[in-house]
Amino acid sequence: MSLEFKIEARSGKARAGLLKTGRGELETPAFMPVGTLGTVKGMSPEELKEIGYQMVLSNAYHLYLRPGSELIKKLGGLHKFMNWDRLLLTDSGGFQVYSLAVLRKLSDDGVEFQSHIDGSRHFFSPEKVMEIQEALGSDIIMPLDDCPALPADPERIRESVARTIAWALRSKAKKNRDDQALFGIVQGGVDAEQRKKCLSELYRIGFSGYALGGLAVGEDPEVRAGMVEMMTEVLPEAQPRYLMGVGPVEECLEAVRNGIDLFDCVLATRNGRNGQLFTSGGKISIKNARFAGDERKPDPECGCYVCRNYSRAYLRHLHVSGEILGVRLNTWHNLYYYYMFFKRMRGAIVSGGFEEFYREQKNKFKAREDG
Amino acid sequence: MSLEFKIEARSGKARAGLLKTGRGELETPAFMPVGTLGTVKGMSPEELKEIGYQMVLSNAYHLYLRPGSELIKKLGGLHKFMNWDRLLLTDSGGFQVYSLAVLRKLSDDGVEFQSHIDGSRHFFSPEKVMEIQEALGSDIIMPLDDCPALPADPERIRESVARTIAWALRSKAKKNRDDQALFGIVQGGVDAEQRKKCLSELYRIGFSGYALGGLAVGEDPEVRAGMVEMMTEVLPEAQPRYLMGVGPVEECLEAVRNGIDLFDCVLATRNGRNGQLFTSGGKISIKNARFAGDERKPDPECGCYVCRNYSRAYLRHLHVSGEILGVRLNTWHNLYYYYMFFKRMRGAIVSGGFEEFYREQKNKFKAREDG
Repeated sequence: MSLEFKIEARSGKARAGLLKTGRGELETPAFMPVGTLGTVKGMSPEELKEIGYQMVLSNAYHLYLRPGSELIKKLGGLHKFMNWDRLLLTDSGGFQVYSLAVLRKLSDDGVEFQSHIDGSRHFFSPEKVMEIQEALGSDIIMPLDDCPALPADPERIRESVARTIAWALRSKAKKNRDDQALFGIVQGGVDAEQRKKCLSELYRIGFSGYALGGLAVGEDPEVRAGMVEMMTEVLPEAQPRYLMGVGPVEECLEAVRNGIDLFDCVLATRNGRNGQLFTSGGKISIKNARFAGDERKPDPECGCYVCRNYSRAYLRHLHVSGEILGVRLNTWHNLYYYYMFFKRMRGAIVSGGFEEFYREQKNKFKAREDG
Repeated sequence: MSLEFKIEARSGKARAGLLKTGRGELETPAFMPVGTLGTVKGMSPEELKEIGYQMVLSNAYHLYLRPGSELIKKLGGLHKFMNWDRLLLTDSGGFQVYSLAVLRKLSDDGVEFQSHIDGSRHFFSPEKVMEIQEALGSDIIMPLDDCPALPADPERIRESVARTIAWALRSKAKKNRDDQALFGIVQGGVDAEQRKKCLSELYRIGFSGYALGGLAVGEDPEVRAGMVEMMTEVLPEAQPRYLMGVGPVEECLEAVRNGIDLFDCVLATRNGRNGQLFTSGGKISIKNARFAGDERKPDPECGCYVCRNYSRAYLRHLHVSGEILGVRLNTWHNLYYYYMFFKRMRGAIVSGGFEEFYREQKNKFKAREDG
């Protein structure tokens, strides 16, 4: 079994799903912590499990360059390498080639690029990227896509869509391992027709899930939201839907309401490292001097390990002092915040009360902006 | 009860002790991880407990400057602040004033210095340092001492001893809290007569334990070892003996053999951050390219969390990539290594086989040097 997906409940367009692979299950809607280099920055696998996470995102581009996907294969695969026995999804590197690598040369064959680490030259074809992910052994794998920065002119978008479709076909043809599920990535910028065309071609090829790629790459959040809403009208019902790289909980809430199932974003972890905490009362910057003597827990409504054991004053002290434990605790809290937000969304869908939950949250977000 | 100390077994001069305070117990000989700023760098309190640690060292100078000892008091004391409910020993800051602070002015009253953080001016008297530690609420506290860098001329050593004795007397007079135990710190550089004089004066004042300070500050290890051996001949039997800041396990082994009970050192944690691992086969530098594909656990003879779950290849990858988890795992392993080394020393004392253990270890250290 590579992947089964069952929709257990609906509330409007929102779906509560259960994604099953040979390795384990995942309740959706779900947020995936980002573990680019085979570790979620600052966290241990046990801590991720303690929070409740079932799936982590990692990255083919990064692991191919360092330490090398063949090396990881030799060492028993990515799960063993990073001591994570739950689900792994690896992104193909399509996005990283465009956002990180230098001197790239793009053709229908693939993309030539220089490593952002040492300038060494590499070539990614759709087939190569499948080989990398088969070496890594992740449970859900993504095909190489052509991901243009936005805004992009219409010609570039059409080219990206044609190439993404052709590469998706080659990726599926190349796929070997039965224990991996391959998703399709929908490109098309903010051009509704191109997006729909891309999806319909991908659907004809047939994938275990469908991802919206090429968003959160420079466009306005409102435009992105419109694109997500439009696409959820045409995305197939039976497969999981993954909105790549989109992460503010406000946007996740809207996207879940529209029927998106999977999310990943560096916000929770990166903000943690920078001392930004997500709380029920809004974002707080823990380095702020007003927290120096604040004995309250970081989030009065939170029950995570951090909030049960530490004060804002201590977190501020750790952050100001550059202590590693500060990064750990901030990241832990933020990942718990995300986990619980998604858990509550799912609970609301299952109980049929998602619209009420949605309105409550919207009011809360609004109140923060006004406050 | 501020402190009770019972010697449960001896093997030659080596002692297996049990140190009791109102807060808890500590088996000696023992190594204290260093938590300068109210956190052992890279570790959580739960992880320290999982290894087995019962006591952590923290620092009055650092916490006074940041976040402030009065603030910590207001927040419920250092134990609560850092979520550590086991024993805490705080060093007085005597050493830090000399090693870190700038533009100090030393007199019999105390020492004026500028913060190494922001250049702000402060004055530490023996009384002030007692107040700081009473605010922190640590279980074992140290008096302000006059700690010269070595080599130092005889006059400076005599001055330091006279001042350290006078300050120790003032510290004891100032001591308020019954739940804190005050140790005396023996100065005297590498001058045997001055060291003995300092100890005998301190003993007349009477302290709950005696520390050898002012070592590992520039002198040869052989000279230091000789000084430790000589002092253990005259240190009182009934109280715990603490060799401050001395940390290579080779030196700890010698010192335990001579009857030292307590140790602290940044080596385990600092080396961990730098990718240096202590193993049964000697120190290894995990960044070395030869570990890139090494699927073995860091130390083949170790049963710690790190060695049970991760390969050298993964630790190298984390270190090379600058990942926080790398620092965490390296530090964890090193602290476990130290903990187990001390546990085995104690076991050997209790079983009467310390000399055999000592010879085995010496041969092992020798073999490493030869190899």
